[in-house]
Parts: sequence; C-alpha cells; structure tokens
Amino acid sequence: MIEKKILLTDCPDDKGLIAKITNICYKHQLNILHNNEFVDFETKHFFMRSELEGIFNEATLRADLEFSLPEGANFRLIDAQKRKRVVILVTKEAHCIGDILMKNYYGGLDVEIAAVVGNHETLKELVERFDIPFHCVSHEGLTRVEHDKLLAEKIDEYAPDFIVLAKYMRVLNPDFVARYPNRVVNIHHSFLPAFIGAKPYQQAYERGVKIIGATAHFINNELDQGPIIMQNVINIDHTYSADAMMKAGRDVEKTVLSRALDLVLHDRVFVYKNKTIVL
Amino acid sequence: MIEKKILLTDCPDDKGLIAKITNICYKHQLNILHNNEFVDFETKHFFMRSELEGIFNEATLRADLEFSLPEGANFRLIDAQKRKRVVILVTKEAHCIGDILMKNYYGGLDVEIAAVVGNHETLKELVERFDIPFHCVSHEGLTRVEHDKLLAEKIDEYAPDFIVLAKYMRVLNPDFVARYPNRVVNIHHSFLPAFIGAKPYQQAYERGVKIIGATAHFINNELDQGPIIMQNVINIDHTYSADAMMKAGRDVEKTVLSRALDLVLHDRVFVYKNKTIVL
Amino acid sequence: MIEKKILLTDCPDDKGLIAKITNICYKHQLNILHNNEFVDFETKHFFMRSELEGIFNEATLRADLEFSLPEGANFRLIDAQKRKRVVILVTKEAHCIGDILMKNYYGGLDVEIAAVVGNHETLKELVERFDIPFHCVSHEGLTRVEHDKLLAEKIDEYAPDFIVLAKYMRVLNPDFVARYPNRVVNIHHSFLPAFIGAKPYQQAYERGVKIIGATAHFINNELDQGPIIMQNVINIDHTYSADAMMKAGRDVEKTVLSRALDLVLHDRVFVYKNKTIVL
Amino acid sequence: MIEKKILLTDCPDDKGLIAKITNICYKHQLNILHNNEFVDFETKHFFMRSELEGIFNEATLRADLEFSLPEGANFRLIDAQKRKRVVILVTKEAHCIGDILMKNYYGGLDVEIAAVVGNHETLKELVERFDIPFHCVSHEGLTRVEHDKLLAEKIDEYAPDFIVLAKYMRVLNPDFVARYPNRVVNIHHSFLPAFIGAKPYQQAYERGVKIIGATAHFINNELDQGPIIMQNVINIDHTYSADAMMKAGRDVEKTVLSRALDLVLHDRVFVYKNKTIVL
Repeated sequence: MIEKKILLTDCPDDKGLIAKITNICYKHQLNILHNNEFVDFETKHFFMRSELEGIFNEATLRADLEFSLPEGANFRLIDAQKRKRVVILVTKEAHCIGDILMKNYYGGLDVEIAAVVGNHETLKELVERFDIPFHCVSHEGLTRVEHDKLLAEKIDEYAPDFIVLAKYMRVLNPDFVARYPNRVVNIHHSFLPAFIGAKPYQQAYERGVKIIGATAHFINNELDQGPIIMQNVINIDHTYSADAMMKAGRDVEKTVLSRALDLVLHDRVFVYKNKTIVL
Repeated sequence: MIEKKILLTDCPDDKGLIAKITNICYKHQLNILHNNEFVDFETKHFFMRSELEGIFNEATLRADLEFSLPEGANFRLIDAQKRKRVVILVTKEAHCIGDILMKNYYGGLDVEIAAVVGNHETLKELVERFDIPFHCVSHEGLTRVEHDKLLAEKIDEYAPDFIVLAKYMRVLNPDFVARYPNRVVNIHHSFLPAFIGAKPYQQAYERGVKIIGATAHFINNELDQGPIIMQNVINIDHTYSADAMMKAGRDVEKTVLSRALDLVLHDRVFVYKNKTIVL
Repeated sequence: MIEKKILLTDCPDDKGLIAKITNICYKHQLNILHNNEFVDFETKHFFMRSELEGIFNEATLRADLEFSLPEGANFRLIDAQKRKRVVILVTKEAHCIGDILMKNYYGGLDVEIAAVVGNHETLKELVERFDIPFHCVSHEGLTRVEHDKLLAEKIDEYAPDFIVLAKYMRVLNPDFVARYPNRVVNIHHSFLPAFIGAKPYQQAYERGVKIIGATAHFINNELDQGPIIMQNVINIDHTYSADAMMKAGRDVEKTVLSRALDLVLHDRVFVYKNKTIVL
Repeated sequence: MIEKKILLTDCPDDKGLIAKITNICYKHQLNILHNNEFVDFETKHFFMRSELEGIFNEATLRADLEFSLPEGANFRLIDAQKRKRVVILVTKEAHCIGDILMKNYYGGLDVEIAAVVGNHETLKELVERFDIPFHCVSHEGLTRVEHDKLLAEKIDEYAPDFIVLAKYMRVLNPDFVARYPNRVVNIHHSFLPAFIGAKPYQQAYERGVKIIGATAHFINNELDQGPIIMQNVINIDHTYSADAMMKAGRDVEKTVLSRALDLVLHDRVFVYKNKTIVL
C-alpha cells in the first residue's frame, strides 16, 4: 500500500549524510516529495526532514538507516497521514482556544482535539458547543505539584501527542515539564525575551513600546525561556492603553499559536539546545 | 508675510482646551492645516500639535495663549519651514550614517547635517565624500566624563537642535544626557526592552528568536531605557547566524532611525514621563 | 444623564472650523475625549470626529452646529454606547463568519449580530451553535435581481446598521448596492486592485507573487472597486500552491475584516469620493 | 585547493534525483554545506541548489552529473567565492542606486559594480563620489531600438553577470530583453500586478489603497510582467498624498531591490515558466 511518511533525522554532522539517507530511500523505491536539511555549523549538528511516498518496509528501512548513519543519530519515521492528537489547557480567555476550535471545525488545522482541560469552568460552555470534552481541574486548595499531577493524570487519559497551552495562565512545575519533553506548546503574549512573566501588556504599556507581539514556544523549566517556534508583532502607538493592547494583541496571539501548531503538527520542528529548527 | 508654524501645546487636561487654542488661532486668522491632539487619561495630560498658516503676530499670540491656557501649560511655536540642524555621532559602522547622508543628498530627509563626530577615524572618508565636516574625538586615554565633555564642546560649536547617535557605540554619562534633554536620538539594534546593552544580535542568536528588530529612542540615564520613538522588526529563522542577523538587521536599523528622525525633525514627538506621543 | 456621543462632521474646508465646532461643544459643557480631524487638500474637504462626554441637549446642539457650519456641512451625532446591529451574508466558507461569531462570543467585537443569511445551508449549523438566527436564501432558479430582492427583504426585517459580506461569493446588483450606501462591508481575498474578481489565489499563484493579502472595502457598483477600509498582506514563496495560499490567506482575511469592522462599528470611517478617511 | 562552489540543478522530476546528485558529490569527497531542493508538482520539475566545499575535479564532476541525470537536465557549477559583476542603469532618482553604492561601500552587498549608465547626467556626480564609472547614454533624438542598442554596447564593454535597473524609467525593447535572458533585475514601485506602468503612486493615491509596496523582478517582454523575485509593502493611510507615498515608498523600494539582488548575486534564484524559485 502506498503511504506517506516523514523521516526526521538528526545527528552529528558528517560528509555524505544526505547521500546516505536519500540513497537508502531510493533503494527502497521511496519517492522524496520534499526534502529540507540544515547543518548548524556552531554545534556541528545535522538535521533533515524528508517527506517520503511509497511502499514502506519499515523494519528494513530502519535497519538500513541505523547501519548507515553515525552513532548517536536519531531518526523517526512518522505516518504523515495520521492526524496528531492534542489536549489543550486553558484558563479563562477564549480567543486562542476559540480560534483552534473554529479552525478545527472547518478543517483549517490538521489536528484531533482529544479534550480541553481548564482550571476554571469559564470555557466549558464554549468548548462543548464544539462537541469536545471539557474537564475542569481546579487548582483551588491544591499545591502546584498536586494540581499539576491531577492535570497530568487527566491529560494522560487521552494519550496526546502534544499539549497546547492556549492561554493557560499558570506555571507548570518541573515534574510536569519533564513528563512531556518538547511536547508542550505555549503562547506567551509578548515578543520574548521582552516582558517575561505576568501582565506583559501592562509591562509594555509602562515601557511605552511601539510594537507588541506574541511568542509560541515549547515550555521548559525556566519561565518563558523555552525554545521559540514562532513570533510576530503588530504596530501600536501612544493611544493604546494596556487594555487596548491586550485587545489588539489577541489576533496576533491566536495567529502565532495556530501557525506554530501547524508546524508542530506536521513534524516540521526540531528542538536542539533550546532552539528550534523549522524545516 | 504668510508663514507656516507649528504650535505644540501640552498641559494638564481640562475642558475646552481645543476650543480655547483653536479659537485664538482663528482670532489671529491663522488657518489650521493639520491638528492632532491626544489626552492621556492615565496622567490626565493634554497634548496638541497644530500646523498653522497665516501672518503671525507672535507676541500677541503667545500672550493670548498664556492668558487662556491653564497654569503649567507648555507651548512652543516653531517655524515649520526652518530645517533642523543636527550633529551626528558615529563609531565605525557605516549603514545608519550612510543612509542619512544619502537621504540628505537627494532631499529625502528634511535636515541640515552640521557635522559628524566620531570616536574613530573610520567614517571620516565617507562623510567627507558628502562634503560634511567630520571630527574625530578619540576616547583613547580619557575617562568617560572627559571624553563626553570634549564631545559636548565639539557639538556645541554647531548649536544643533538635535544630536543623532547613528551607531555611536559608547554610553554617554549623565552630565552629557542632562545637557541635551530629549534632544539625543539613538538607534539600538534590538526590539527593546529585549537585548539591552552590548551585542544584541549575539544575544538574539543565543536566545533563538524568530524576529529581530531595531528601536529608535531618546536617551536618558538608564542604558537603552529612554522614551521609544519607533520600532520595527523582520522575520528570521534558524539559518541566521549572529552575523547574518547583524547584516539583515542593518536595513531595519537605518530605516527605523531615519523614520524616527523624520518625526522628530518635523516636531511630531512629545516626550512625557519616559514615553513619546507622536502627533 | 452623562452620555458619550460621537460627532462626525464633514464639509468644504474653511478657516476656523475646528474652533467653531469645539466652541459649541465647550459652550454645551461637553468634554472632548478624542478629537481627530483631516483636511483633504486636493478636494478641499474637512472631516472631523469628536468623542464627546456630558449631558446632551441634542436639539440645541444641532441647531448651534447648523447655524455655525458652512452650507453643505454634514454632521451626525451618534450614541457611542449603542452597539451597532449587523446582518452578515455568507456562502460556504467558515473562517470569516467564524471569527466574527467567536469574537462576538467573548466580547472582542462591539457588535450585535442580528442574523446571518446564506445562499447555501452550509454554515447554518455553525451559526446556530452561537444562537444567532440563520436564514438560507437560495439563489437557485432566480435571477440576480430576484435573489438580491429576497436578500434585501430578509435583511430589512432586522433593520441593521451595516451589512457584512463575510465571504459572500456573489456579486450584488446595483439596486441592492444603492439601497445600503456605504453600509455594506466586503472582504476580498487579495490586495486590491490586484486580482479583482474570481479566484484571486489562483490568479496570485499563476502570477508568481511573493505576497498575498486581503482587502476590506465598502461595496459600490464596480466589482471590487469600492472604498478601501483596510488591507494587509503576508509573505509567501514558491512552495505555496494556490490551495496553500488560500489556507494561509484565511487568517489575513478574517483579521482584516474584523479590524475593518472594528473601525466601522466605532464610527471611525468617513467615505468620500471612493476613498475612506479613518479618524 | 579547497574551494566553494554552488551546484544548481534543474530537470524533469524523477525518483532518486537527490540521491544521485548527492552521491556524486560524496564520491567526489565534496562536503555539502547547504542543500535546498524543490519539486514543482504542477510542472513536475525538480530544482536543487547545493553549496559544496572541497577539491573540485570539475570535468569529471560534470561528466558524472551528465551521465546520471535525466536528459534535459540543466546544471551549473558556480564559483561561490567570485563576486558577481553588475552594470546598473539609472535615470534621475537616487535612492536605489544610492543604497547599492552605500552598501557596496561598506561591504553590505557582495557585488562588483562595474559601471552605472544613466539616460540623464543627473546621478553622475553621486556615482563618481563612489569612484564608480558613470556613463550617460542619452535617449534624446534616438528611437528606442537605437538607444537600447547603445546601452547594450556600453553594457557589454563591462561583460556583467547581471544588469540592475535601479529606477531606470524607460521600457527596454525585446531585442535588449532577449540579449540578457533572466539577467536584468528591475525594481517596480508597486506591489505587482497592481499599478503596472507609469506613476504607480499616483494610481495608488487615486485608488485609495491602504498599503503601498515594491516588487523586484526579472524583466521580460511584457511591461512589469516578468518573474517576481521579492515584494514588500508598508501601511499608509488617508493622510498620504501621492508625493508622500512616493517618499515613504523609497525605503521599501531600495530594501526590496537590495534584498532581491542579494538573492540573485548568491545564485539562489531559479527562473522557470515566469516564476522564481528561491532556494
């Protein structure tokens, strides 16, 4: 059966890597639909993403790749036709989750939304209008660790590929972060590294900036310091209050988040040493 | 004689301010070509910029305004047809000073460049190709205060309206800053407040951002903390080294600086409480 | 009772117009919160938008304005706190109507959506999820004039302030256009005047452009020739098929439309001689 | 001797092309620094750009490629370290040629400017300040064909790799175009295909657009219809006269042109069926 798969390879850079990998594909009679590669000359690391089409003998292909590639090479073969499954965490703001729900509704985002989990009930009604399960996991009366543990249990019921923080307004503890390495995508409402932490629009207002923006990134254990996937800004001026910035910023936030998701969901994002390589 | 003047007014907000000011203009038979106003509702402060045309009886006009406006009002009446005079400080990089020189050459920037002062000789040859005086005021063997004093003496010979830091790569001491309040425009090669201080492109590279930018601002006594006039960004990706960012960033830097200058030179920028109001 | 109203004035330019209008406001003890004016020196026409706060004696205010302003002056006094009512026309595409519905849901767009009318049933289900009435007025078997007449009848049941074409994919006949002068806002999926008419993304693909965009405009009787309210673009490259452009363009379309609506709904848009003045 | 060369390949798409080409490189012990490929699935054509480093046995390499690649394949092996030579045509406007001269001065554009040719004397003085030969080839009293022939003769004296039209305001005849296929880069001061031909800013003003832009493209025999290399826009509003648009547009024009040149000069642009593929 003809299938489409994505081969993601990364390894220490070496001569002949593209030749070796593409040869193996050729030998397997796999057609390369798209091929993107990048060598980071600072870290001397090689990255390649190949969209393949053909009849896959996966065991042999893996064996051939393992034999050919240098030690320490990572490769993953991913079914290009299987939609990724996500669980989305929210708090009270509707614009990011709303945009994802709507895009999902009309087929604009290639994703299966397994469930939405909020620490408040606020968005339950909206989510359920789209026939997606909503769970409220309140943080009231719990330590952060206790709450995150409940979250993780709820998330794990759905076995998602990725977790999306669509304006989830709480910091997640290191155990949670470690549980889902490079699998939690957050949207932060500033052009990082400016305005880290709480109330970035208020910070932006106080500083008197002329642009505001948003940053989609994988989370790590330092607040707003994870690998950046996508950023964008819009122009503002002195007439914008912090509230007006927040209102204007919503379209940037939701667009940056959904474009970042589009990349992540199509396996176009490598994470390496706290940076992303988008192929 | 028919003249064009710009009336800049700012004062604590009050009812009837626009009516009072425009009435006086009308009484003086001055035509208002453009009128822009802004009330900062947080600080309850009023700002207005009026481009006036007619025969000016300046003494009476001032007296009428003083009589009408609330105590603490500032107003300035500026000859709209007189080009501003600037002294430009540089170090070694050519792109910002080069763009200003070139725009000045073909009439693209409404300015009189009185002189360029560098702390290195590097740009002397370029500046002199455009028949502008270049002075080297080396910082070698001097304390910052001593050097800044020499700079100020050289600058003051030309009695400029504004001083432009076109990639002048040294911090200026508080005495220097105090000498030219809201008259020194700097270009910083990042979207402030991100990447304050030295080597912002290297910082941007290390953080793995997906946009880089530039900020034009008036200087104050905190490094890269002065009132922001204009900012812009461009998209980059993982293929950009710090050097490639620096190269790509040059067009943003020079464009942001010259657009900010265009605003400043046409008296469109109020400074209030470390922010700018651009009318 | 303290109210907020917006005074929109336009008339042939003359000396003292701002003074006259703001004086009347002052005499009426109305505070001017925001005041924006523009003189088109080509057509010698004056435009002003004033946000007023106070106790309105509307009859006297109107009389005073009429007495003071030159013949041919238009002025409108609009309740700033009353949300505009719109009827939205759609065909099959969900992204623009979806964004408006979602923004309306979370309070991001200051509007009352009276009803949505489609020439297909496709979007009925989505619209009804947001508890907004949906009417299908099919064009099947009807002439354009007949169909537009049915549309107008349905629209008029709701007495909307504005009609929004949120990807309504049919041309409206001159009678329909004349019935709602400067009250029908359309989104066109190209940066006009490029790619007028059908399939602009296909046209863009064939031309090999490196940007795609969207234009929000009032309709008039020439296809895609009405007064432009807002435009924006995004970068694309050779990897985009016409379909990929269409997908990427959706976020631009919906954002341009909702930002244009935000301006229109807050009475910030004057139309004059097939152009808009946005104050 | 270790050299860097760029291998540009294009041919009808086929299985195994990347493998074949990269294998040959590997066999020749050439390191691939960067590799970008694109398959146009509409025309079923394959494009690849490979930056190679190593000791080149060019004759063998070519023979190997010729043997391996399908009939009709084009490949070019280009010295990556040799700067391209250009002749620049101008008329009277200084901003684009000025930016190129300035970038060339400080090393911001990897190019050898062999000469500048104008149909007016206007820019002679500026060009000569940068020690570049300037030739005036006036069109006065000549037919277009005669004038273009003189231009071509002057250009050919310098044997340039590319010809840059830096606001050269005349249409070139088909013979001239045919003489330099895909080697003449023009900057047009609109976002094509909008506002083709003369006075695009006047056209933009009359249409009342909210963005203006610029397009860099190779010329062909239809006015402003050649393959587009790069485009960009800036936002404007109702306050812009045609003159103000022209002034604001200059920075976009010059930036688009120099970024397009940067791509062309580094052999990153394929032309195929009136489109560009930028690798």
